Amino acid sequence: MKLKAILLISAALGCVAVPALAKPKAAPVKTVAAPEAVEVTAARLRDAALKSDVAYGFVSDLTTRVGARPAGSEAEKRAAYWAAEELKRLGFANVKVESFPLSLWVRGPESIEITAPFPQALVGTALGQSAAGEAEAEAVLFDTWQEFLDSKADVTGKIVVLLQPMARASNGSGYGRLSGTIRGRGPLEAKKRGAVGFVMRSVGTDTHRFPHTGTTAWQGEGGLPSIALSVPDAEAISRIKRLQAEGKAGPLRLKMKTGGSFPGVGESHNVVADLIGSEHPEEVIVVGGHLDSWDLGTGAIDDGAGMAITMGAVKAMVDQGLKPKRTIRVVFWGSEEVNQPGGNHSAGGAAFAKTREGELSKYVVAGESDFGADKVYAISLPETEDKTFAVKVANALAPLSIYVDATAKPGGGADTAPLHEAGVPAIDLKQDGYDYFDVHHTADDVLDRIDPAQMQQNVAAWAATLWLIANTDVTFKAPAK
Amino acid sequence: MKLKAILLISAALGCVAVPALAKPKAAPVKTVAAPEAVEVTAARLRDAALKSDVAYGFVSDLTTRVGARPAGSEAEKRAAYWAAEELKRLGFANVKVESFPLSLWVRGPESIEITAPFPQALVGTALGQSAAGEAEAEAVLFDTWQEFLDSKADVTGKIVVLLQPMARASNGSGYGRLSGTIRGRGPLEAKKRGAVGFVMRSVGTDTHRFPHTGTTAWQGEGGLPSIALSVPDAEAISRIKRLQAEGKAGPLRLKMKTGGSFPGVGESHNVVADLIGSEHPEEVIVVGGHLDSWDLGTGAIDDGAGMAITMGAVKAMVDQGLKPKRTIRVVFWGSEEVNQPGGNHSAGGAAFAKTREGELSKYVVAGESDFGADKVYAISLPETEDKTFAVKVANALAPLSIYVDATAKPGGGADTAPLHEAGVPAIDLKQDGYDYFDVHHTADDVLDRIDPAQMQQNVAAWAATLWLIANTDVTFKAPAK
Repeated sequence: MKLKAILLISAALGCVAVPALAKPKAAPVKTVAAPEAVEVTAARLRDAALKSDVAYGFVSDLTTRVGARPAGSEAEKRAAYWAAEELKRLGFANVKVESFPLSLWVRGPESIEITAPFPQALVGTALGQSAAGEAEAEAVLFDTWQEFLDSKADVTGKIVVLLQPMARASNGSGYGRLSGTIRGRGPLEAKKRGAVGFVMRSVGTDTHRFPHTGTTAWQGEGGLPSIALSVPDAEAISRIKRLQAEGKAGPLRLKMKTGGSFPGVGESHNVVADLIGSEHPEEVIVVGGHLDSWDLGTGAIDDGAGMAITMGAVKAMVDQGLKPKRTIRVVFWGSEEVNQPGGNHSAGGAAFAKTREGELSKYVVAGESDFGADKVYAISLPETEDKTFAVKVANALAPLSIYVDATAKPGGGADTAPLHEAGVPAIDLKQDGYDYFDVHHTADDVLDRIDPAQMQQNVAAWAATLWLIANTDVTFKAPAK
Repeated sequence: MKLKAILLISAALGCVAVPALAKPKAAPVKTVAAPEAVEVTAARLRDAALKSDVAYGFVSDLTTRVGARPAGSEAEKRAAYWAAEELKRLGFANVKVESFPLSLWVRGPESIEITAPFPQALVGTALGQSAAGEAEAEAVLFDTWQEFLDSKADVTGKIVVLLQPMARASNGSGYGRLSGTIRGRGPLEAKKRGAVGFVMRSVGTDTHRFPHTGTTAWQGEGGLPSIALSVPDAEAISRIKRLQAEGKAGPLRLKMKTGGSFPGVGESHNVVADLIGSEHPEEVIVVGGHLDSWDLGTGAIDDGAGMAITMGAVKAMVDQGLKPKRTIRVVFWGSEEVNQPGGNHSAGGAAFAKTREGELSKYVVAGESDFGADKVYAISLPETEDKTFAVKVANALAPLSIYVDATAKPGGGADTAPLHEAGVPAIDLKQDGYDYFDVHHTADDVLDRIDPAQMQQNVAAWAATLWLIANTDVTFKAPAK
């Protein structure tokens, strides 16, 4: 039935070899099937991908068989070798696990509670890369990062608490504003001012009692104990602040404990696999997602989905018996989530680019999927001389309700940034991230968060796009430095 | 503006004393304001309650100032004395905290993980009243309670795992089927068959990673370590079961640890407060919710809401300067959630009824609110000779989209059951519980789950109903034994 459906679609597109029955009987001329136009194949591939359960099955297996796979952990290694075997089984070539060194961080026991004026336990979790420590002290509350920066309040010996909420947006624009400031630099700033602990409202858009972890700047053992509270717990502290303002509550005191440890240098892993190009194998299109996840959930939307979507798009070609002219390289990057001493994430992206320094001029384009499993709504493409290319993409993606966003310069994420910095152009398939930060970096990042139908649309978008890039002569300009 | 709005509504209902301006000038007769009809007052009260923030404010304060208040804990005691002061402040009379003994249970450290075939941590929590213990053993998986009961499988030395999901329904009918069987008797049954641990899918309708706790039968120190998994974790185990059936996964082994302890006999507390009747103070209407909560959340919907709704309904009368003819007694029952040695919950309900044995024949009716904070959609009333009464209630509640359900016999919950067993009739305001078991007994039972507007409808329904009962001669028949 699956095959029949494909044939029907192909027939509808007028792209199969004309069957014998349709031959005019009166004039029996010899007919030769014309090669299928690239746009037609892209459409066929798109429609097949829309029905494929390969991507969902991959995330289901990964989250069930491995679960959480923090950067540098034994579980991440197991995930790498499992994924490599899976890629071979699915028909990829040149499958490799490439290891690289990583400075490790491991979560330990952690807790936070109010000791005064209203004693009770709170739900929080340590920021990744934050140090072990204990503190019991008065809390100084700030509504925003700016208020904290501007404040002359003496926080010596106190616990700094940041209560700024994250704004919800489909493009996730509320995230970077807080992840790089409050979460990334908050503990460092607070320590500089003499604080003994750092507490923040989670960078998340939900109202459920899941704290959102995430990396802070690496400070090693010398850092402050740093905890993100779930949004309801942060809201409770905001209510206490209002009661204080009304004279109905005394000073807030918190007791906190974190157990993060730094076991030294370990190993993380990239998994690399190719669908080798039939005409220009040396011209490489890189796509992928990241292998590691935070330790609280099972990394379904972050980023099991990204691996599954990009891999699934390429696997759809295999399933259709299609061979691209250019090579498509699928990469599962290790250690995207964690900051490293003196550097930013991702170590996996950096290691991948470094290993291939000499060959990057042949890389056509690189794109990553790291924003959950919901639908793609727009695509932005790098500059090219071929003005027809964007039209081809637009036509292929319009049935999926995706438009070509010509106003935006395509950007990369953490994993492809080193490639883009080395001159590899970026493609950017923009996903709907309206709900993404409800779950991001929480224990609730599990398979149950993925809608298989939305994920299929996403796979279909990647499949059609990659086919067009891999089977035309389009070349893109290097990103502006 | 609040007063003006009330006057406008009153005027619209034609129930205020006719103002001087409206007197016919030609015939200056002496007019006397007729006493307001009970139905008119009920409507006025209802509409005022719809705008009141008293109930929401109560839950906000309770959850912020006390938070979790497990039965018999210091926090429950603090909640009791805080609530008593609050009730006095709000204008209630005869406010009392009535203490009674309780066999205590306290949660300890707990964890559960898969050790084979796919090692990873799971999210679970011990059942209330379950013992401390550790087990590392093969798991025997059952899809339903019936399958477990019927099974002849040897579970000696193994961990019994029940994977039955709960059905979602607005009336909560899916709950009792599992809480009394799998959760209540599962550990006992598993132990009888020689199992070393008991694990179950949470009794909950959500798909989030919150385990739902809840009481099991009291077995003291001799019971099995017993854990409820979050739904996503139970789903993961169901996936492993399917992989096993396909020959793709070996036997499941679990490692679990629970730390429940039984510190002996402590104290719990009922809080009782009256709005004293002006004509028949000895005729008592009992309403309330329960004071204790589970330890994971802050007890906003279970049952801060129930206390707030019933108290708020009576407070609306105070705010309107209304005095009922019969006494309305608001009760916050302690220790509803926990089973006791040899008995069922609620100890608070039993203590309340026991203390008043001699006077229960004067109790008109008793009702409790213990099903969250969403809207009321129906009411069922006990039998009465007064056939007009249900019509009055129907007319008062129709504007709130509530119908009188004449097909159902009103039942009580755990707290009023001892009253009903002693012959006090029950009223039952049926709330929409469609989402209730998404959150019930989880860490996510926090203020953020309450929609103030839905709660106001609920308060309004109680206010109008209680006013009609308190200000008519209606008497109800004792429930059939």
